[in-house]
Amino acid sequence: MSSNDSKPSWEIKAEEKRASTLAKIPSEWRLSPEDLELAAKQHDLTGPFIQKFLDPQTISIVTTDSLDLVEHITDGQLTALQVTTAFCKTAAIAHQINNCLHEIFFVQALERAKFLDDLYEKNGKPLGLLHGLPVSLKDQFHVKGVDTTMGYVGWIGSNLGITDPKDAHKIESQITADLLSQGAVLYCKTSLPQTLLFGETINNVIGCTLNPISRNLSCGGSSGGEGALLALRGSTLGVGTDIGGSVRIPAAFCGVFSLKPTPERITYRDMANTNPGQNTYRSTVGFLSSSLGGLDLALRAAMAARPWLRDPAVVPIPYRQDVVDDILSRGPLKIGVFWTDGIVEPHPPIRRGVKILAEAVSKAGHKVVDWNPPSHKPGRDIHLEFLLADGAHDVHSHLERSGEPLIPALKEGFRLRDPMPLLQYQDLTIQGLAYEIKYSDYWNSTVQDDGQIVDAVIMPVAPHAAVVPGRYFYTGYTETINLLNYSAAVIPVTRADKAVDVVDTAYKPVSELDKDNWDSYDPELYHGGPVGLQIVARKFEEEKVLAIAKIVYAALQTSRTKP
Amino acid sequence: MSSNDSKPSWEIKAEEKRASTLAKIPSEWRLSPEDLELAAKQHDLTGPFIQKFLDPQTISIVTTDSLDLVEHITDGQLTALQVTTAFCKTAAIAHQINNCLHEIFFVQALERAKFLDDLYEKNGKPLGLLHGLPVSLKDQFHVKGVDTTMGYVGWIGSNLGITDPKDAHKIESQITADLLSQGAVLYCKTSLPQTLLFGETINNVIGCTLNPISRNLSCGGSSGGEGALLALRGSTLGVGTDIGGSVRIPAAFCGVFSLKPTPERITYRDMANTNPGQNTYRSTVGFLSSSLGGLDLALRAAMAARPWLRDPAVVPIPYRQDVVDDILSRGPLKIGVFWTDGIVEPHPPIRRGVKILAEAVSKAGHKVVDWNPPSHKPGRDIHLEFLLADGAHDVHSHLERSGEPLIPALKEGFRLRDPMPLLQYQDLTIQGLAYEIKYSDYWNSTVQDDGQIVDAVIMPVAPHAAVVPGRYFYTGYTETINLLNYSAAVIPVTRADKAVDVVDTAYKPVSELDKDNWDSYDPELYHGGPVGLQIVARKFEEEKVLAIAKIVYAALQTSRTKP
Repeated sequence: MSSNDSKPSWEIKAEEKRASTLAKIPSEWRLSPEDLELAAKQHDLTGPFIQKFLDPQTISIVTTDSLDLVEHITDGQLTALQVTTAFCKTAAIAHQINNCLHEIFFVQALERAKFLDDLYEKNGKPLGLLHGLPVSLKDQFHVKGVDTTMGYVGWIGSNLGITDPKDAHKIESQITADLLSQGAVLYCKTSLPQTLLFGETINNVIGCTLNPISRNLSCGGSSGGEGALLALRGSTLGVGTDIGGSVRIPAAFCGVFSLKPTPERITYRDMANTNPGQNTYRSTVGFLSSSLGGLDLALRAAMAARPWLRDPAVVPIPYRQDVVDDILSRGPLKIGVFWTDGIVEPHPPIRRGVKILAEAVSKAGHKVVDWNPPSHKPGRDIHLEFLLADGAHDVHSHLERSGEPLIPALKEGFRLRDPMPLLQYQDLTIQGLAYEIKYSDYWNSTVQDDGQIVDAVIMPVAPHAAVVPGRYFYTGYTETINLLNYSAAVIPVTRADKAVDVVDTAYKPVSELDKDNWDSYDPELYHGGPVGLQIVARKFEEEKVLAIAKIVYAALQTSRTKP
Repeated sequence: MSSNDSKPSWEIKAEEKRASTLAKIPSEWRLSPEDLELAAKQHDLTGPFIQKFLDPQTISIVTTDSLDLVEHITDGQLTALQVTTAFCKTAAIAHQINNCLHEIFFVQALERAKFLDDLYEKNGKPLGLLHGLPVSLKDQFHVKGVDTTMGYVGWIGSNLGITDPKDAHKIESQITADLLSQGAVLYCKTSLPQTLLFGETINNVIGCTLNPISRNLSCGGSSGGEGALLALRGSTLGVGTDIGGSVRIPAAFCGVFSLKPTPERITYRDMANTNPGQNTYRSTVGFLSSSLGGLDLALRAAMAARPWLRDPAVVPIPYRQDVVDDILSRGPLKIGVFWTDGIVEPHPPIRRGVKILAEAVSKAGHKVVDWNPPSHKPGRDIHLEFLLADGAHDVHSHLERSGEPLIPALKEGFRLRDPMPLLQYQDLTIQGLAYEIKYSDYWNSTVQDDGQIVDAVIMPVAPHAAVVPGRYFYTGYTETINLLNYSAAVIPVTRADKAVDVVDTAYKPVSELDKDNWDSYDPELYHGGPVGLQIVARKFEEEKVLAIAKIVYAALQTSRTKP
């Protein structure tokens, strides 16, 4: 009590919240103080380390990918209850050693799994495409009976954005309901950064989520808890959101896969969000997975629910198998390679990753061409101006509910200030539309050389591997893609290697920003950090970008086995 | 000279522009002063009156609808040159008696027609779905070599929105290019009101376009010249735009058909527009036609060009024949009937029109139910606030180029004032999205009564028949549909009839606005005024709404022959 007296009330609330989340972990899944100490000293928590705390059946289940899990449940090899138990247990360990969960609702999950098993026995067929599959959610999706704090202390005990207390815990995001209608099992919600607009995962409720692959590094953000949980195999399919890179960055940093659709393809109805009145450049729901098959499954499931019938913001485009078939039956693809945006030069591990991937694709018989689009600078600048146009009024309205401060990294960026004048905002809208057109014209112009238009472009996700905390200076590689509303998939490509990715003193930074990033490369600290790259296609090309990602990833696998 | 000395320079420019447009009419198509005087005294200029000035072949061609015209050109019964000549001539007469054109480019049109005839002879097949069909355009679409003034004196001699003089007359709107790629012949651009945001057609360049069916009435707006030209059969297919009713109002007022798609279905790239930075509620390109077949043809042609490949704002939804087939093969449709929005009561002719149509649909065997949605008031209010949010700065920037004043009807509404603060604008965005969802939920709830969801809703376009100039008090019936981004088709239903549509003294207006409208009904003045109604379907349901409009219109025809 006495120690609490000196603490601000928001800190006490956050402490209580953390304790109550931990208390939801059954005692048999609790780690001993000795194990926790061991974990705190461990550099890489994934694979063998976390598996020390798991039984063989659990390991076997959680190292299976989404598609096979659903198949095993529907062919009777596994029950939904077995699978759910395995992921609840693994997520429980993951949270204890890597602090990646905001919410735990294992009791409901196990009940749901039993219900699905009974249903399957009764009907002899699965409920839907996700029958029995545990799906994790970023703490931005509303689940009945569960908090949505989105990392704000002031929303503990309720759902962010629900101002009528009698509606607290009653709301369900449409995507949540749609995934449930396809047989998903929901069991936990994952950590994210305050504001959602940050490439690391830190908030005043749970503190920081680091990268389970290397304690020197961040798991990324804003869907950072998803990335961490997937890397620890506490999930095979997670749902996040992306307005500036938020499903792509954590996937790239944690060595997993993700899909960022064009906004208005996946329902965003009844979600918590930052500054929802800024609707010119919308955040989109996206998926993170341990496999490309998991992403495709998630897209199919989301479309099978025909979301446009309930969410008028969703464009009525069903899953297009013909697009996939077209890609698979075509001859060589034409793949652009964006080595650098010329604004912030990628660190040596990223340069090497792009080279590896470009060579693998070329070796597999596809055309590989340099990508020289209009400068990404206006794209990134316009996008950032939209995100900050409200002068951080929305963010501060959430902070004020508890009195919590901005986290140190965001103190300057989210300082409360005057909103942008409307005429400037409308002029910026015109600039954004013009940029989209200019970029699209460039894309179309790629037909001129050889009669074939570029199918997709390989690009860095960030100018560095999984970032050293505090050194994420530039999100332009992802943000420009948001301005363009393009679809993108992230695949893991390599890891930073101090033996190969040596400091390059020959490169001369072109700006202060570029210098900050360039100088921040430290082969020792970055060693082992995942390098993921994005494969970018145009608007509403989700099926296409996933089909191409599969081809590109297969080429990478082949090049590894036959160097 | 001396008379001009006292005139403001903008008036002189407008006079010169009018004269130069008239001068483009070949002398053999010029009417004598006597004929012009006769026309000035004529109440109804359509049908027999305008046909007095046309030869039998011309009459035969221009009274044929779009689909048959294209068929006759491609089966060799007619040449594109014959058809184009007939429409140029009719449009020339129409303009002289009804002042409905901004631009005339018959010379280019006739050359184009010859080119298409030659091409057809050479290739033995049409260029596209519109081969040889004359298509008229609202003066908001850029055509190479031609002014786009959008009714602003300050833009005479150039294209609105093109600030670099060296680009003047070089630009082409994408829809223009796409229609040309399908074989269209462009020959004229039609009148519209200053600002585009007005339900009548008046500007300082050409003055006023009245309703050719009754000189007491307005042709509507903003695609008003299109409505007038179609009623006079100077066109069978016109292209307009709609942000608050602008393709629906002129169609309803001039007794023709129109399609208002959901924004982002048809390309709006490289168009002139009012306040393009207000992109939250977008204007959409739409079509007006003398037939529903013409609208369907236009939609097919616009989609055949695959506009999304060049305009990143267009959603990649091709023409969906399966949607049409589904409607045609289904059993009875379920049609909602919106008798009144409860804010402004429709005049007796509209009440009667809705009744006629509802009864015809019911008699044809379809389910007809009352439509009781969430109040349209917030929908209309939010929409109007968006249109006026910039404080009329965009409009005034265009006025300032010439010093012309606002037209009297818009003096108060478009007074220059402070733009809305951004936070209010973003809050309004949230309100709009919430309204869309609420309305969609209501629509879905119609499944509850009988297991069938409402397919489409019959609604007034305005609370009156073709309006008496100066008495258009309320555009809520169309604007709410824009806020909802729904698709809609307009069909002609009846005409105001002083013998039947008597003043109803029993109705007690619910507000000043309602009273203004109610008191403005004058059976004598409104007599003969067309009553068109809109058939409204949900977002991106263009194929569906046209298929339903055909069924509904056929039911109306049947009920007329078998009362």
